[in-house]
Amino acid sequence: MKITVWNENRHEKSNQKVAGVYPEGIHGTLAKFLREAGHDVGTATLDEPEHGLTDDVLAETDVLLWWGHQAHDEERDDIAEKVKERVLEGMGLVVLHSAHFSKVFKKLMGTTCDLKWREADEKERLWVVDPTHPITEGVGEYIELEKEEMYGEHFDIPTPDELIFISWFAGGEVLRSGATFKRGRGKIFYFRPGHETYPTYHHKDIQQIIKNGVKWVANTSTPKPVRGNTKPLEDLSK
Amino acid sequence: MKITVWNENRHEKSNQKVAGVYPEGIHGTLAKFLREAGHDVGTATLDEPEHGLTDDVLAETDVLLWWGHQAHDEERDDIAEKVKERVLEGMGLVVLHSAHFSKVFKKLMGTTCDLKWREADEKERLWVVDPTHPITEGVGEYIELEKEEMYGEHFDIPTPDELIFISWFAGGEVLRSGATFKRGRGKIFYFRPGHETYPTYHHKDIQQIIKNGVKWVANTSTPKPVRGNTKPLEDLSK
Amino acid sequence: MKITVWNENRHEKSNQKVAGVYPEGIHGTLAKFLREAGHDVGTATLDEPEHGLTDDVLAETDVLLWWGHQAHDEERDDIAEKVKERVLEGMGLVVLHSAHFSKVFKKLMGTTCDLKWREADEKERLWVVDPTHPITEGVGEYIELEKEEMYGEHFDIPTPDELIFISWFAGGEVLRSGATFKRGRGKIFYFRPGHETYPTYHHKDIQQIIKNGVKWVANTSTPKPVRGNTKPLEDLSK
Amino acid sequence: MKITVWNENRHEKSNQKVAGVYPEGIHGTLAKFLREAGHDVGTATLDEPEHGLTDDVLAETDVLLWWGHQAHDEERDDIAEKVKERVLEGMGLVVLHSAHFSKVFKKLMGTTCDLKWREADEKERLWVVDPTHPITEGVGEYIELEKEEMYGEHFDIPTPDELIFISWFAGGEVLRSGATFKRGRGKIFYFRPGHETYPTYHHKDIQQIIKNGVKWVANTSTPKPVRGNTKPLEDLSK
Repeated sequence: MKITVWNENRHEKSNQKVAGVYPEGIHGTLAKFLREAGHDVGTATLDEPEHGLTDDVLAETDVLLWWGHQAHDEERDDIAEKVKERVLEGMGLVVLHSAHFSKVFKKLMGTTCDLKWREADEKERLWVVDPTHPITEGVGEYIELEKEEMYGEHFDIPTPDELIFISWFAGGEVLRSGATFKRGRGKIFYFRPGHETYPTYHHKDIQQIIKNGVKWVANTSTPKPVRGNTKPLEDLSK
Repeated sequence: MKITVWNENRHEKSNQKVAGVYPEGIHGTLAKFLREAGHDVGTATLDEPEHGLTDDVLAETDVLLWWGHQAHDEERDDIAEKVKERVLEGMGLVVLHSAHFSKVFKKLMGTTCDLKWREADEKERLWVVDPTHPITEGVGEYIELEKEEMYGEHFDIPTPDELIFISWFAGGEVLRSGATFKRGRGKIFYFRPGHETYPTYHHKDIQQIIKNGVKWVANTSTPKPVRGNTKPLEDLSK
Repeated sequence: MKITVWNENRHEKSNQKVAGVYPEGIHGTLAKFLREAGHDVGTATLDEPEHGLTDDVLAETDVLLWWGHQAHDEERDDIAEKVKERVLEGMGLVVLHSAHFSKVFKKLMGTTCDLKWREADEKERLWVVDPTHPITEGVGEYIELEKEEMYGEHFDIPTPDELIFISWFAGGEVLRSGATFKRGRGKIFYFRPGHETYPTYHHKDIQQIIKNGVKWVANTSTPKPVRGNTKPLEDLSK
Repeated sequence: MKITVWNENRHEKSNQKVAGVYPEGIHGTLAKFLREAGHDVGTATLDEPEHGLTDDVLAETDVLLWWGHQAHDEERDDIAEKVKERVLEGMGLVVLHSAHFSKVFKKLMGTTCDLKWREADEKERLWVVDPTHPITEGVGEYIELEKEEMYGEHFDIPTPDELIFISWFAGGEVLRSGATFKRGRGKIFYFRPGHETYPTYHHKDIQQIIKNGVKWVANTSTPKPVRGNTKPLEDLSK
């Protein structure tokens, strides 16, 4: 499986705290544990030409991970559109944390994707509400993160196809924090945790969920729909 | 309730057959039976300034019906975007037949909304698959249309929130032909029948379903979500 | 609309604290505010003959509310079965709090309906996650209850048709606490709050949600499915 | 993976036509192609002691397939209950054709599972409506069966978690004919085709779908929910 990890990669350059937590960039950390799981992993970042997402890269990518935050506005519209089209054709997409506000995710959802938030070194518990789902394999009934940014409801997304995690936050909020969406022939997994100032992507359970998510969204040889003008089963004029 | 019926209103001008079936335009026929049901109904068409959808019209519209076909490309992007935003804020939307390809519907769905089609004077049966749903009130277990255009799967829409009708076509296809979607605070009902050359919108059962649909998508005084930066329940630093 | 409020009515007799909070029984409190809303409301309790649910009572009931806790085992199986069948035929059902473990709800769900719980005078916040839903009309973006029993995930129910509320509890848990289910021609609303030692059913917002729920589950003149051996549209042997 | 194929195995004994199509029994045919796919497959039939489903057999079964028709009433209630419990604990279940009326499926669904039917050597087309789903891998956009029994809507099942196939029948009906359900930690796949007098289970595409279904429902090491009385995150009395 060919994975591309896309990262905005700006906080890492401008904020020493973030650089301290993710010295190789958030994309570097994600790529590393995915490579260790045996995948063929490339990375792409905002400031590369075409954001690192050339037609060739997109064409050969089976699963794309997306992390962005402060520079969603700098994403080129035409590239966001291309990524969306590849998802509809079957490329898997894992949308992480603040990428809820990325152009790609908003285009695919059709909603504002807005939510509540707070930075307060707050405890988060991600409760599994779908214990049949392969994305939950290998973790316990909840994952606890000592400190994270809070994201709270109402999260303006379409009804998920599957709701897998609900987060509890110490300050009084909840969030549908792990959810899947089917669009076209593509599968999407949104997974909330991962604020840039916390070591969330070094957490074993979080890595496990992302590895499971990548497997789950990966494209398979499902039927390619035929569209447009179509002949009937037999002559209807009889 | 304030309803606005939007119609492209081009076939009616260029095609005598269509003008014969809908002498007052498709919008005129829809508006008439909705008025008879006691609603306050306005109409708007593509060739009016701002497609008849000024900010004032949109602001006071509780439910918008949309019929379009050959001129989706002529819809102004900024107006489609405004309509989408009003839906997310709570305006109900009923999307009819070939409006599956309207800019508004595609923006809200995030998919291509493509499907199979055939014009062959074909029999259609719309089977009720959700007999709990208020949209099905007052009709039998299926509605039969002697002649309609065929629309067939795969219909490239997100998984509907509710699947209400499945159509059978004589030539061998099926379609998820009545479906609801929730987006933001707004509710959407897609209803398939209504090719311009057939008297479908004069059919009593079809009118009943559209009247039910209008009631179902109508906005109500549901909670207005609060978003953005938020205080915790109590001081978390304690 | 004819409503029947069913209550186990045992805590009220054996526990002075409960009797103090609900001097007319939980059923009495529920019936009172539903009558004030203009409904025709009867009550039925476990210790009446046939638990107060004779064939006549069931036949004329449009919406049944159910509260039970310590004596689910004493519910007669045949009566639970009859109630289930009436729901499948179209009677609305509102299942309250510990009635998650009632025979009727378990039969309709097909699962254990088990969950976590704790009695610790704990704060609960019910967050609205579906602001399109008529059941949420007239309340804010969340309802806060100062003290309630905790119910936590994993709640062993089928995927709800609609998830309306998610509860946050001070002690670290979440619950899908307002959810709808369609079964046969009947609609079901499960609503979590209402432990017998707290004045939850005197809370204006809780009463509002229950009133909304009753309206939402109420049966309507939707199509009655025809089943069994069926003739084809036309002779297939041609 | 350990698979058990359960079959009523009565038609095969009493009806020469069925015996001609399935000389080794329907279970024999199913077991054969599943073995060829590399699985460890056992069979069990109604007339064996405990219907062949002893506690040991159930305990070691990862996926159970179920075919039954004329003798659902002879299934022992206690065994149906045990099978249901194993599904809730995580055993996968594939329910075939007339097993929609089996005790096990009805208990898990909570509905009548009734539908329309007709035996008329009728053409069936199973259209893929979820081209993201692994159950559809390796087949085209539809599967056509020259002759099958018709099953028609309204099919009295809860809203499926996923709707994968919709069947078209020549005589004018449709059916949600491939659908998944999550119950407890278990996954269920209902797949319609397979009337005993037709060679449906010899059809390569039908075999492919059943093989895919078996893989999809197979249990995985997902979290085992903890239930009952629970301690809070920290002392709430502070």
